[in-house]
Amino acid sequence: MSDAAPSQRTTVRRGANRALYATDDVKAILDAGLIAHVGVQTPDGPLVLPMAYGRDDETLYLHGAAANHILGTGNGHQICATVTHVDGMVMARTPFHNSMNYRSVVVRGLATKIDDKDAKLRALKIITDHVVENWDIGRDVSDVDEKKTLVLEMPLAEASAKVRAGDPIDEPEDMAGPWWAGVIPIETKIGRPYPAADLTGTNPIPEAYTALDGRVV
Amino acid sequence: MSDAAPSQRTTVRRGANRALYATDDVKAILDAGLIAHVGVQTPDGPLVLPMAYGRDDETLYLHGAAANHILGTGNGHQICATVTHVDGMVMARTPFHNSMNYRSVVVRGLATKIDDKDAKLRALKIITDHVVENWDIGRDVSDVDEKKTLVLEMPLAEASAKVRAGDPIDEPEDMAGPWWAGVIPIETKIGRPYPAADLTGTNPIPEAYTALDGRVV
Repeated sequence: MSDAAPSQRTTVRRGANRALYATDDVKAILDAGLIAHVGVQTPDGPLVLPMAYGRDDETLYLHGAAANHILGTGNGHQICATVTHVDGMVMARTPFHNSMNYRSVVVRGLATKIDDKDAKLRALKIITDHVVENWDIGRDVSDVDEKKTLVLEMPLAEASAKVRAGDPIDEPEDMAGPWWAGVIPIETKIGRPYPAADLTGTNPIPEAYTALDGRVV
Repeated sequence: MSDAAPSQRTTVRRGANRALYATDDVKAILDAGLIAHVGVQTPDGPLVLPMAYGRDDETLYLHGAAANHILGTGNGHQICATVTHVDGMVMARTPFHNSMNYRSVVVRGLATKIDDKDAKLRALKIITDHVVENWDIGRDVSDVDEKKTLVLEMPLAEASAKVRAGDPIDEPEDMAGPWWAGVIPIETKIGRPYPAADLTGTNPIPEAYTALDGRVV
């Protein structure tokens, strides 16, 4: 990827001044995200569902149950995975110029099922450890678990980021008006972990979990 | 809508015990949401973008610039609008049973451009006032503004909600193991509004904005 739009269809059309194709921006937004909204085409039209994901270098991984409808439909086809952070509501002098502050990445590309067992387990570890590392501290994933799981990979080659930050941008003729203008911030924050009601395990809570308390994503 | 799945394609397949078709659940999740991820079909595959929206009874409204690519593509076609709140990361005794706590609504249906000016302005007011009422306190929307805007409507007739809450659900044979299990909560919260750097207007900040401070969505 480079600072140029990687393909015609990836070119951001509206608000192109807010578009970022640079790989570091794309990766940073993906790495801070919790879920992707994944779109596939079905005979009844597009279907968009929220999913966990993971990223490794320039590959995005998605997983689900072996019978997962959206992943089964997407396998071998073009899909789209979009990750968005909402950072604020931009309240302009007129509703026509209201906006949102946000960071988003749109990834379009061919989704492919991972069949090789080692590659699949590696991808599952990446998805599992996406927000907080925990693959290595739970009960090991069994062969049965692995067989019950479907993992797709898609390249980040056609990914673009779009970011809006800062104040509203009003019409020059509205600037002298009496109206208030500003930003209402929005924050998504990780909180303090709590144990399951049926917890009897003797391992202490992983430090990596408690260290997340207060992190803004 | 009723408690029954409104159509075959809307039936939630995985985790059907978490599916809610009842209209009040769908409406509550939509009304608490900030953005929808809207999917359309393009010649290059599905495209999913984040958008503001509004809801009136059993209709969802989307808007954008008149030249908006995704709305122009979706007009007259089946589209999908998905709204998701992430409430926590569910950390099981094995990564295979990790999950997310969330509330989501998936709306599939025919998107139609609103041409009638009064209906269009009414829809724009509903979108503008979705999170906080402000349509009536800014500079009035002009004819030029209205002509520059594209508004689509889609019915909520085929909407379904899916909710996961609570503790991890592990295998019976893992319950006696040493591993920690619990939930890492996640919260999206509205903060204290701040004025634009170039604000000269004399109107005070609307009370409705300051009243949002601390609201969890």
